[in-house]
Amino acid sequence: MEYQPLEHVVQYYETDQMQVVHHSNYVRWFEEARTHWMDQAGMSYARMEELGIIIPVLTVSAKYVKMCRFGERVLVDLTVEEFNGIKAAFSYQVREADTWELRCTGTSSHCFLDRNNRPMSLKKKYPDIHELFVKWVR
Amino acid sequence: MEYQPLEHVVQYYETDQMQVVHHSNYVRWFEEARTHWMDQAGMSYARMEELGIIIPVLTVSAKYVKMCRFGERVLVDLTVEEFNGIKAAFSYQVREADTWELRCTGTSSHCFLDRNNRPMSLKKKYPDIHELFVKWVR
Amino acid sequence: MEYQPLEHVVQYYETDQMQVVHHSNYVRWFEEARTHWMDQAGMSYARMEELGIIIPVLTVSAKYVKMCRFGERVLVDLTVEEFNGIKAAFSYQVREADTWELRCTGTSSHCFLDRNNRPMSLKKKYPDIHELFVKWVR
Amino acid sequence: MEYQPLEHVVQYYETDQMQVVHHSNYVRWFEEARTHWMDQAGMSYARMEELGIIIPVLTVSAKYVKMCRFGERVLVDLTVEEFNGIKAAFSYQVREADTWELRCTGTSSHCFLDRNNRPMSLKKKYPDIHELFVKWVR
Repeated sequence: MEYQPLEHVVQYYETDQMQVVHHSNYVRWFEEARTHWMDQAGMSYARMEELGIIIPVLTVSAKYVKMCRFGERVLVDLTVEEFNGIKAAFSYQVREADTWELRCTGTSSHCFLDRNNRPMSLKKKYPDIHELFVKWVR
Repeated sequence: MEYQPLEHVVQYYETDQMQVVHHSNYVRWFEEARTHWMDQAGMSYARMEELGIIIPVLTVSAKYVKMCRFGERVLVDLTVEEFNGIKAAFSYQVREADTWELRCTGTSSHCFLDRNNRPMSLKKKYPDIHELFVKWVR
Repeated sequence: MEYQPLEHVVQYYETDQMQVVHHSNYVRWFEEARTHWMDQAGMSYARMEELGIIIPVLTVSAKYVKMCRFGERVLVDLTVEEFNGIKAAFSYQVREADTWELRCTGTSSHCFLDRNNRPMSLKKKYPDIHELFVKWVR
Repeated sequence: MEYQPLEHVVQYYETDQMQVVHHSNYVRWFEEARTHWMDQAGMSYARMEELGIIIPVLTVSAKYVKMCRFGERVLVDLTVEEFNGIKAAFSYQVREADTWELRCTGTSSHCFLDRNNRPMSLKKKYPDIHELFVKWVR
């Protein structure tokens, strides 16, 4: 399926006094890549929250390979490692946009909650949305 | 009335590559000082939101006198400039805790909304809460 | 001169529990608009810092008209109100990208410092860079 | 050795529209706990950076057990899992301060760099600082 990785321009407010991007921001970029991917998969996260579907983060991890600097353009590529209607897992690769140099890898896992914060099977409750996403599993 | 200004320890993640606190964080410290003051005034903001009272920011301003650095302790003092039940206005002074050196001044103004985002007169709807705050006006 | 206002997609991590963008983030968007404008004016801020030119924020203000929500696309338009080689002042307008609806206005003022944090006349020290920017003053 | 875990009051600006703390902020709290621990161990991170010792993050992970809310007080406890002068590894537990309820666990690993971003053996270069920290390894 066609998919464009997220392009993100590194902002000044994302740097810290080590003069590189603060490591917590990569976790934010992973989220940015998820919403970007969901837009392309045909169901935006904003739309899902309107339907009462919440997708909290259960775990997140990041491995920093080389730090990013202010003004750089990075690509954040997302791979769907798992999407079974109960749980979803993603992996991420952050690369400098021009050189394709690897800067950071990461993972996140998620479940689905309804408006009352109860676990939900996306597969049972919203099979059409589930189908939209499940075919992206690598 | 007795009141302790907010004490805040400057965090690494608050710095930017100019090796000082990123200017946007002072706006966050103003908010931190407001919630700290509300706690002391006897009505926490968390409690107000439970009652369905939202206090959005209408305006904010900051004047940067001298930048703060990682590891410093700062005091954020708040003055209630106006609190009339329809609108509230505050001013702020950020000082280094030991030397009392002025680092930043600022202002913010606010109104009160109900759960449906409609303007509310705190004075009419919650006169007891209004009374708690109004006596702090300088 | 040709100029494209910054386009910014509102991120989940920019929202707060009022379910709109936290007000401090608009101050970050103003910065994002400044760097975006400098790129277009022919001298990136990253490049200026390499030359040892620091542009701290002296004052900032924001007036919130209508709050922005997750998933919206906003345009942040910048006007150069003043640029005299000693000081620079900008104004900002944040609008929803499709409807052009006004969400927030703001201002910021700045000076120029050298590597030793001493005030610098950009006009005297880097007249070519000064010339690049000064013609944008409205 | 005596040690007080970090106490952190959850700020409004740390929440997101899920009405809980945005997951990226726990990674910031881990950092806050590290600097807090270093202060107590007798060598602040601010002081180390003055000496030219940079401690970048190599990996970070977080497992979210139960989300934190605005106004809560949390304790962030840190355990030194490894500190051998070349590499350091920490684990974290975030708990609600009154109930001791577990909210989040995490890990981070780090190396030491000199001013030129070259790997450094803290043990060889600054044995006294190394000694200060190494006795905290569990």
